Amino acid sequence: MNPFRVLVLIVVFPLAAAAGPLPSWNDGHAKSEIITFVSNVTNPDSPGFVPAAERIATFDNDGALWSEQPLYFQLIYVVDRVRALAPQHPEWESQEPFASVLDGDMASVAASGEKGLAQLMGATHAGMTLEEFTASVNEWLETARHPTTGMRYTEMVYQPMLELLDYLRANGFKTFIVSGGGIEFMRPWTERVYGIPPEQVVGSSLKLKYEVRDGRPVLVKIAEIDLIDDKEGKPVGIQQHIGRRPIFASGNSDGDFQMLEWTTSGDGSRFGLIIHHTDEEREWAYDRASHIGRLNRGLDEASDRGWIVVDMKKDWAAIYPER
Amino acid sequence: MNPFRVLVLIVVFPLAAAAGPLPSWNDGHAKSEIITFVSNVTNPDSPGFVPAAERIATFDNDGALWSEQPLYFQLIYVVDRVRALAPQHPEWESQEPFASVLDGDMASVAASGEKGLAQLMGATHAGMTLEEFTASVNEWLETARHPTTGMRYTEMVYQPMLELLDYLRANGFKTFIVSGGGIEFMRPWTERVYGIPPEQVVGSSLKLKYEVRDGRPVLVKIAEIDLIDDKEGKPVGIQQHIGRRPIFASGNSDGDFQMLEWTTSGDGSRFGLIIHHTDEEREWAYDRASHIGRLNRGLDEASDRGWIVVDMKKDWAAIYPER
Repeated sequence: MNPFRVLVLIVVFPLAAAAGPLPSWNDGHAKSEIITFVSNVTNPDSPGFVPAAERIATFDNDGALWSEQPLYFQLIYVVDRVRALAPQHPEWESQEPFASVLDGDMASVAASGEKGLAQLMGATHAGMTLEEFTASVNEWLETARHPTTGMRYTEMVYQPMLELLDYLRANGFKTFIVSGGGIEFMRPWTERVYGIPPEQVVGSSLKLKYEVRDGRPVLVKIAEIDLIDDKEGKPVGIQQHIGRRPIFASGNSDGDFQMLEWTTSGDGSRFGLIIHHTDEEREWAYDRASHIGRLNRGLDEASDRGWIVVDMKKDWAAIYPER
Repeated sequence: MNPFRVLVLIVVFPLAAAAGPLPSWNDGHAKSEIITFVSNVTNPDSPGFVPAAERIATFDNDGALWSEQPLYFQLIYVVDRVRALAPQHPEWESQEPFASVLDGDMASVAASGEKGLAQLMGATHAGMTLEEFTASVNEWLETARHPTTGMRYTEMVYQPMLELLDYLRANGFKTFIVSGGGIEFMRPWTERVYGIPPEQVVGSSLKLKYEVRDGRPVLVKIAEIDLIDDKEGKPVGIQQHIGRRPIFASGNSDGDFQMLEWTTSGDGSRFGLIIHHTDEEREWAYDRASHIGRLNRGLDEASDRGWIVVDMKKDWAAIYPER
């Protein structure tokens, strides 16, 4: 062998290995299980082979593709919108839950419960055209910064999950978001940030109304819930939008339990992944007792159900993409 | 030039021309407009260029991809199901609209109106798991034959439209069905027949409920309407499922008017196609006065709106695929 080829073997091979799939995943059980699963479903000679058309993978968003603390980012948008709209609504100064939002008293906002949340959503997500709502989301994403990290919200996405999305797609999977978050809140940016186009986003939604205004057709968001895409609503949203059962599902909270249950109880190769937030230094640490992203039943039953639990602190070499 | 090459030029070139796009479309305005549109949107140097991700094409189904006479095929399924289920429902013999269905008195069934239809849909489309419904549709498609042609229903699809679907997909389009018909009635066979996977089917739908029965999760169809994907419902269904405005839409009745309006009122290259049923010999001839697939406003406004009207008799060299 000539010296040049020896050099290539020494220098290039280790580099090639480092550039293998999932580089931000530390070697361990989670990473090796993912790679084994993908090898099986893509190998026509494996009993676990799955035709490409059926390689459907569904991903929760909040706490599973991007962070969700100290509040779901969409709720931070709601708070910012209420503040921006307040000058046009002087009555909000004495009307709950708006008054508490304007005072920054989030404990009282939380105490207003589902009814309060519905009022806030109605005021900030309905009664406008889809075009107007999308423009407002885009403008917010441009200007808003996270209260503790100072980062843009779309920068607080998990690098290991971006790699997992790419890895699955490179192996013939079709990747979908299935989130309790608002479908139209996500669609403006999921293609750019995750490589997931609008038609592969499933989420909670308000009803829409088609109208022709001065000869120009518009879709108007109305203050009536169409789907709450959480818990039992996730398999429903999956069927409505995708029409077949995923073979891979990933989430982080008990809101994802039924999606993982539905996904992994089908025949053939199946994969359930739970992201466990264990990293209080690089991200946040929370599970059974958290008011956001509560993970309790999932932790109890993951092992019996064969779901893989990612220990964020141990399994992930990086959290957010390098800037 | 050697004689062999001359032979190739004489024999092969005409064959190659005949095997161009849309072979079952006769040369004429409709065919040339389609080809011009596709050339423009795929040509990066054209002012009408559209990036591949935005090349969304939506197709109505009944009367636009397959026939719809003498009754929407899904209604024939309903009639057949009522007959099949009748032994378990002795009360139907004296209960409308079931009694009229069992008597074959379709005029009385029609007279029972929306309420009657809702009862029939409830009895044949709800209260079962999705798996059971899909199995029933598949079994029906295997055994049922059209009352006048004697053909399988899935053979009564339009050959020129199959070619159009292929042609658009070969040019980077993503093709969707957007039909007033039932979403779960179509999904079992659209991939096989049209090359359109379940996740690209939009239709009318009942609500679904997720349940765990004896440890096994199921989705149950319940007798509550989720979406009527017709008229103003079509742009709504498009937004819910696809999340962006199509650049190409095709239909055949006034139920498709708003879909075409929504599609063609966007910026840039747009295409609206109406299939006009003019062929009483090879298919059916009907429009303004038909109780099924009524086309009135569409015919009046197509020209002003720049929509192309296909004259089935004149523009299509074949109707159904050769068997």
